[in-house]
Amino acid sequence: MLKLFDLAGAEDDRRFSPYCWRVKLALAHKGLAAEIMPWRFTEKDRIAASGQGRVPVLVDGDKWIADSWTIACYLEDAYPDRPSLFGGGAGRALSCFYVGWTDGVLQATMIRLVVRDILDHVHPKDREYFRRSREQRFGQTLEAFVADRDRYLDLFRQSLAPLRSTLQAQRFLGGETPLYADYIVFGAFQWVRCISDYGVLAEDDPIAAWRGRMLDLFDGMAGKAKGYPV
Amino acid sequence: MLKLFDLAGAEDDRRFSPYCWRVKLALAHKGLAAEIMPWRFTEKDRIAASGQGRVPVLVDGDKWIADSWTIACYLEDAYPDRPSLFGGGAGRALSCFYVGWTDGVLQATMIRLVVRDILDHVHPKDREYFRRSREQRFGQTLEAFVADRDRYLDLFRQSLAPLRSTLQAQRFLGGETPLYADYIVFGAFQWVRCISDYGVLAEDDPIAAWRGRMLDLFDGMAGKAKGYPV
Repeated sequence: MLKLFDLAGAEDDRRFSPYCWRVKLALAHKGLAAEIMPWRFTEKDRIAASGQGRVPVLVDGDKWIADSWTIACYLEDAYPDRPSLFGGGAGRALSCFYVGWTDGVLQATMIRLVVRDILDHVHPKDREYFRRSREQRFGQTLEAFVADRDRYLDLFRQSLAPLRSTLQAQRFLGGETPLYADYIVFGAFQWVRCISDYGVLAEDDPIAAWRGRMLDLFDGMAGKAKGYPV
Repeated sequence: MLKLFDLAGAEDDRRFSPYCWRVKLALAHKGLAAEIMPWRFTEKDRIAASGQGRVPVLVDGDKWIADSWTIACYLEDAYPDRPSLFGGGAGRALSCFYVGWTDGVLQATMIRLVVRDILDHVHPKDREYFRRSREQRFGQTLEAFVADRDRYLDLFRQSLAPLRSTLQAQRFLGGETPLYADYIVFGAFQWVRCISDYGVLAEDDPIAAWRGRMLDLFDGMAGKAKGYPV
């Protein structure tokens, strides 16, 4: 049985890591069951066998695999008879850019809107670690970092233009059905939904309609997860 | 024999439209010969049969096809036995986002750096049209629009982060060999190279190395085109 270490919050069932969501949806896409193990930021020792200190970490027999992209490629190669996450070699190569855009643009902008809200939901034992590590990264307090968030909202929504135009032309980034590229990008929206009631998307945004389709996949797997309504 | 209307400048052989470059590289990728017809902004009547007023316009027998994405999809479907531009249905769907990013982010930022340089290279009969249409779009003179371009250069280079991280991981956006996604993005860099000596990329940028590989494709097709050295 596969095992996945998944970031959990104050409650065991609040799972908000965008990277872990990518992997959980990839597992569901491949129809692979996994034991999902709640994990907190400060429990580095539990995943030490992966050679690093962040989740997701997948355990498959004696293999420990870290990093969501590495895990997705591992699943694709180790379980080739299951539905493909990439739709072939070209699709895998073309998915790499989605990682760069989601990590470097989408989530980097989104965090400016909701990082203070995360603090309200992390496990008590993680709060000091979370505040300290993030304030060091941003060079200011979490409160100061999000104080102007309403001013950034328009800019954030504008930055979604490439996603919007794509989802006006097709149902999923992968076409008629979702592929791993959808899970990469959706992970960011699910992250926000799990820890904040801040309305990052306008209701009539075509991206919101796609988010709804993503929340419904796999018997509503993402939509049923603990979080805020969208 | 296929025909392609291709934007030309003051000299017949200065071809700087990023969208036309996408198609010319797509034709080369498929090994399809085409008669390339120089065309100027104000020659709307010559392409009226396409139902609109911009290039690229491809003519295949009695079919007139406009819009670079529509043309790429047409070529893929009409010439399925030739090398694929997308690497399959998933690759085609995943390429759509590259159009959105290149049009909405990459070229939208790049034009701030080089639009005034274009004016120096358009055909004399197009100069008034070009200045008027662009100044209307930007709400200021071309000179004012680019006056601060050095200030935008860092921001522009930062905006390339998703492209950079992808090209650090693989040789082309399409993987080991180029796909249409490469032509979409490269068209923007070729556009700049054809009309400006402004150094948009740092020499040691991994994107510059990829640009070099793109310039070399198809016996140096893009690299031999009239423009400035990079």
